[in-house]
Amino acid sequence: MITSPSNSRVKEIRKLRERKEQKRTGLFYMEGLRIIGEAFDKGAELETLIVCPELLKTEFGLELWKQAQQQRLDILEVSRPVFESLAVKENPQGLAAVAKARYYALDDLDISHGIIVALTEIADPGNLGTIIRTADATDCGGVILIGDCTGPYDIGSIRGSMGAIFSTKIVRTSLPEFLEWKRRTGLQLVGTSDKAATDYADIAYADPVILLMGSERAGMSAEEFEACDEIAAIPMMRSSDSLNLAVATGVMLYQIFNCHRRK
Amino acid sequence: MITSPSNSRVKEIRKLRERKEQKRTGLFYMEGLRIIGEAFDKGAELETLIVCPELLKTEFGLELWKQAQQQRLDILEVSRPVFESLAVKENPQGLAAVAKARYYALDDLDISHGIIVALTEIADPGNLGTIIRTADATDCGGVILIGDCTGPYDIGSIRGSMGAIFSTKIVRTSLPEFLEWKRRTGLQLVGTSDKAATDYADIAYADPVILLMGSERAGMSAEEFEACDEIAAIPMMRSSDSLNLAVATGVMLYQIFNCHRRK
Repeated sequence: MITSPSNSRVKEIRKLRERKEQKRTGLFYMEGLRIIGEAFDKGAELETLIVCPELLKTEFGLELWKQAQQQRLDILEVSRPVFESLAVKENPQGLAAVAKARYYALDDLDISHGIIVALTEIADPGNLGTIIRTADATDCGGVILIGDCTGPYDIGSIRGSMGAIFSTKIVRTSLPEFLEWKRRTGLQLVGTSDKAATDYADIAYADPVILLMGSERAGMSAEEFEACDEIAAIPMMRSSDSLNLAVATGVMLYQIFNCHRRK
Repeated sequence: MITSPSNSRVKEIRKLRERKEQKRTGLFYMEGLRIIGEAFDKGAELETLIVCPELLKTEFGLELWKQAQQQRLDILEVSRPVFESLAVKENPQGLAAVAKARYYALDDLDISHGIIVALTEIADPGNLGTIIRTADATDCGGVILIGDCTGPYDIGSIRGSMGAIFSTKIVRTSLPEFLEWKRRTGLQLVGTSDKAATDYADIAYADPVILLMGSERAGMSAEEFEACDEIAAIPMMRSSDSLNLAVATGVMLYQIFNCHRRK
């Protein structure tokens, strides 16, 4: 059992909180019974399971530990102070893991039907995780991250996704590559803007369709506007001129999902 | 200018981060140019404006300071270390305020038309703020907080609301009082549950209508189920059995809003 918070492996794991270290290693850190249970269920590539026997109390947690042993996963037993030095959340439950971040290429996406979500320069990990969760519930074929987006494997995003991150195809790409793929596949691209003329409820959403959402701060760029086949406006009353990005994406996804399932 | 972080007024303001101190005093703390600008615009009852001249750089910020002087508001000038000891967010912009929390009674709500949102035991301030923001955009007549809810004037909620907290009627009440009001007014009450049989897209939403959303953890209670005229299910695919509460509320609000505006 590792009892020193300055142990070199513990230090390495702690460093995985930083995005640049995640990028360098292709690994990410997560914690909590529910999330790690989801990771097991959905076949995430776990590298190391971190267990603190003193904190791990529940039946479910002990079951996950056993499962990791049976799968001959690398298991790191650590003392309570070490675990607490790693944990991001208060009152940690004694189970954490390091896993491989999984990314797909644009051509890996199933574009035979349904919705693909594309996000440009999304900044908030909680928003991203929440959108991945909604994308899973509306059976989206994938989530495309265009340009400089927050990391989908950030702890805030993983938590917000409630495990949907492990069953959603995530693509990272640049705007030129995305637009080239859109042209090549001929998919309908629907953007959103409060400056658009068309009510989102009046658009004929193709099946399949790509839904493009701009960033929290700046919305869509001029080039993105230009590339869209339709631009949808979600109507807003009073002085509101925007919705939370995860809410706006949810409203759009369910509108499209309802159109598709009613065909 | 106050230069000591242990000055008694500064200490009092710092204490306003705690919910019990907010309850005791009926006051709350907020910070940031945009939010304080919204508070001015929408006529929030500001008690004290806290200014750090060294940090306050923008035209907009200086304009707000001037506006506060013209309105003969109580203004507290503080040094940078003092301001930083108060600020919750990193890189503070030099403007904060203490204001009076405003609550309404059930009978203050306009129930002539539109939507009233009722939330039971909502726990996450970010979710609450985001819901208030969406309620504003869909012209809701008010947001009712039933039972032990997080505070709408928590800094996370204020921030999530993007200022909509200042233009939304907030009611705090108990479940018995809420149910008595529902009976008395005869309004349609629509709840939501993943266990419901009726697709949310198939419900005839009355105008006016009350939308009831359960808590993040436990959803609606048996007594709440019993009191609803309709229970709506938002369909979910794959292994999803829930959405983020703010997203689910947004999807429901826009569904009802669309029904109402198409009449």
